[in-house]
Amino acid sequence: MDVRAAIALEAGKPLVVDTVQLAGPREGEVLVEIMATGLCHTDKYTLSGNDPEGLFPSILGHEGAGIVREVGAGVKHLKPGDHVIPLYTPECRECPSCLSRKTNLCTSIRGTQGKGLMPDGTTRFSYKGKPVHHYMGCSTFANFTVMPEIALAKIRPDAPFDKVCYIGCGVTTGIGAVLFTAKVEAGSTVAVFGLGGIGLNVIQGAKMVGANRIIGIDINPEREAIARKFGMTDFVNPKDLGEKGDLVGHLIEMTGGGADYTFECVGNVGLMRQALESAHRGWGVSCVIGVAGAGQEISTRPFQLVTGRRWIGSAFGGARGRTDVPKIVDWYMEGRINIDDLITHEMKLDDINKGFEMMERGEGIRNVVNYTL
Amino acid sequence: MDVRAAIALEAGKPLVVDTVQLAGPREGEVLVEIMATGLCHTDKYTLSGNDPEGLFPSILGHEGAGIVREVGAGVKHLKPGDHVIPLYTPECRECPSCLSRKTNLCTSIRGTQGKGLMPDGTTRFSYKGKPVHHYMGCSTFANFTVMPEIALAKIRPDAPFDKVCYIGCGVTTGIGAVLFTAKVEAGSTVAVFGLGGIGLNVIQGAKMVGANRIIGIDINPEREAIARKFGMTDFVNPKDLGEKGDLVGHLIEMTGGGADYTFECVGNVGLMRQALESAHRGWGVSCVIGVAGAGQEISTRPFQLVTGRRWIGSAFGGARGRTDVPKIVDWYMEGRINIDDLITHEMKLDDINKGFEMMERGEGIRNVVNYTL
Repeated sequence: MDVRAAIALEAGKPLVVDTVQLAGPREGEVLVEIMATGLCHTDKYTLSGNDPEGLFPSILGHEGAGIVREVGAGVKHLKPGDHVIPLYTPECRECPSCLSRKTNLCTSIRGTQGKGLMPDGTTRFSYKGKPVHHYMGCSTFANFTVMPEIALAKIRPDAPFDKVCYIGCGVTTGIGAVLFTAKVEAGSTVAVFGLGGIGLNVIQGAKMVGANRIIGIDINPEREAIARKFGMTDFVNPKDLGEKGDLVGHLIEMTGGGADYTFECVGNVGLMRQALESAHRGWGVSCVIGVAGAGQEISTRPFQLVTGRRWIGSAFGGARGRTDVPKIVDWYMEGRINIDDLITHEMKLDDINKGFEMMERGEGIRNVVNYTL
Repeated sequence: MDVRAAIALEAGKPLVVDTVQLAGPREGEVLVEIMATGLCHTDKYTLSGNDPEGLFPSILGHEGAGIVREVGAGVKHLKPGDHVIPLYTPECRECPSCLSRKTNLCTSIRGTQGKGLMPDGTTRFSYKGKPVHHYMGCSTFANFTVMPEIALAKIRPDAPFDKVCYIGCGVTTGIGAVLFTAKVEAGSTVAVFGLGGIGLNVIQGAKMVGANRIIGIDINPEREAIARKFGMTDFVNPKDLGEKGDLVGHLIEMTGGGADYTFECVGNVGLMRQALESAHRGWGVSCVIGVAGAGQEISTRPFQLVTGRRWIGSAFGGARGRTDVPKIVDWYMEGRINIDDLITHEMKLDDINKGFEMMERGEGIRNVVNYTL
């Protein structure tokens, strides 16, 4: 079938919005009509060409929401009409990772997903007669896509696509890191490094679980207002500490020894070190969420660990896609979390490159392509 | 009073065995007759002059066992005749760290202890009329020492001093890292980097909690036999992997994806990285136990953490000194752990420098000064 898509033809070039061909779902696969998709920094990173695992041509996009239109043979849990969120971290419930109870990083289709292919080793997309790669197992920058059943979370039908699509990546990544990965307890002091979309979701996760004090750190003073709205209690702008400003020392002093939990939400390896070192001696946990540039490394003195700090990381917020994502959609519908204030721009697919340009300029929090516009 | 001690007069020089003066216990303090003390690599490190926090002159030694001979005013939990193990990590049960329930790193006397002083800011030792520093709050290289009550674990009176002194550092550090810090579960796969005293104690800790597979890694093939005796199931000598040997890849292959828990027991920052990276994707925990040289740093790609590995550290095995050390003494007396095979040499105090020379040559596991010889 013909579908409308933004195609990443080559690295470093704008997306090309055009008609591509999509083959129907095979065994265990599902055809989904994508109704909305967020534009994430990870899409931008891959498009830039700096992602060593980036493949071209491909259909990017991994933060969507849509409606099942057709199911392949053997699909058991979904039927046409079901509302779904695509999962770049699937949940097969059968692989050693799913059965470990210790990780959300299902490994059942990791090999083919990393190669931009469906689990059978082929692609459903083609453009001008040539195959086009899938991206992160999702490819939501097309108004229809085909996905494995295990990579779709079934959600309630009354949830608005143009809001809950954000749960497909950013919301879950931020809130989940607090709830599922770090397991922050009520009464904790939390420090959040970087107040972009992920940081704001970490803040609302920390508020949700009853953190006492939520310190936000950002060099952009304009982020203070919205962060306070989401639950931040203290704001630190490292630029205000002067040229020789010691951010770690400042945070340790203001928290009486360091934060119980710190989260790095930028992808800056220097900031990851500061986040670790401003965690409390004896028990502070520092969680890396941001994705660093290719080949970059984190460092610290091992004494930081020996004296009780723990350095951990979170991918997709430690959330099991099919189990936890529908719960997060419920939380949004019940008013327990705020997504509306984070969706700062909605646009047509035709304007997707303008959306990435806005991200480049740091405008807004989340841009969403709404296919119904 | 006159006591017999090995004095560290200056960095890089042998200890001087001579008579020093010891003042009696003040309020909250206890006079202990040291009956035996182990020689630990940390003593050797400080004596070498490479420890930036080393102080001279001082009485080194922190792995002892002895008998209470006199108590100062206000001492409530100890009386003359009680058998005790000195604790370089005290347990006051009143400071924020003790009350956190999250760490064993009591902070009540940390400031003065780091300066080689008793909690009141003075020293009890003097030599030729000049004050001599305490070391790690213990100074067990003297046949009598004075310590704060909160830094003494009361143990059963039938435990042999020349064996249980090792519980004052090495045994607890190794076993405790498994039981109290990493909390290894039955059925786990464990990899132990470095089969010295700490590594062997990690192995017997892992065996004690029911680990399925315990892989030991050492470049010294002579360690294989004793490590197997302590519970090691697989031995890897990195030298056998050839010049381009990929230790991490080898371990990941032999464990089907990495170990559930890895422990670095050497103090080598390169090995700490290998230990982290050979932990299992999704849930592997890597625990740093070894003490790295001053200023050295650990590094890795943050992707290692984001994909679920956790980097932690352990000091004194995460054990609360007064609570857990007596239990470990009981385990030894009940035959649940083996210390006898680790004490490879006993000597008089006069021969202490020979003991350090043996350590330098890598001979034996643990040398103990037995003051009754």
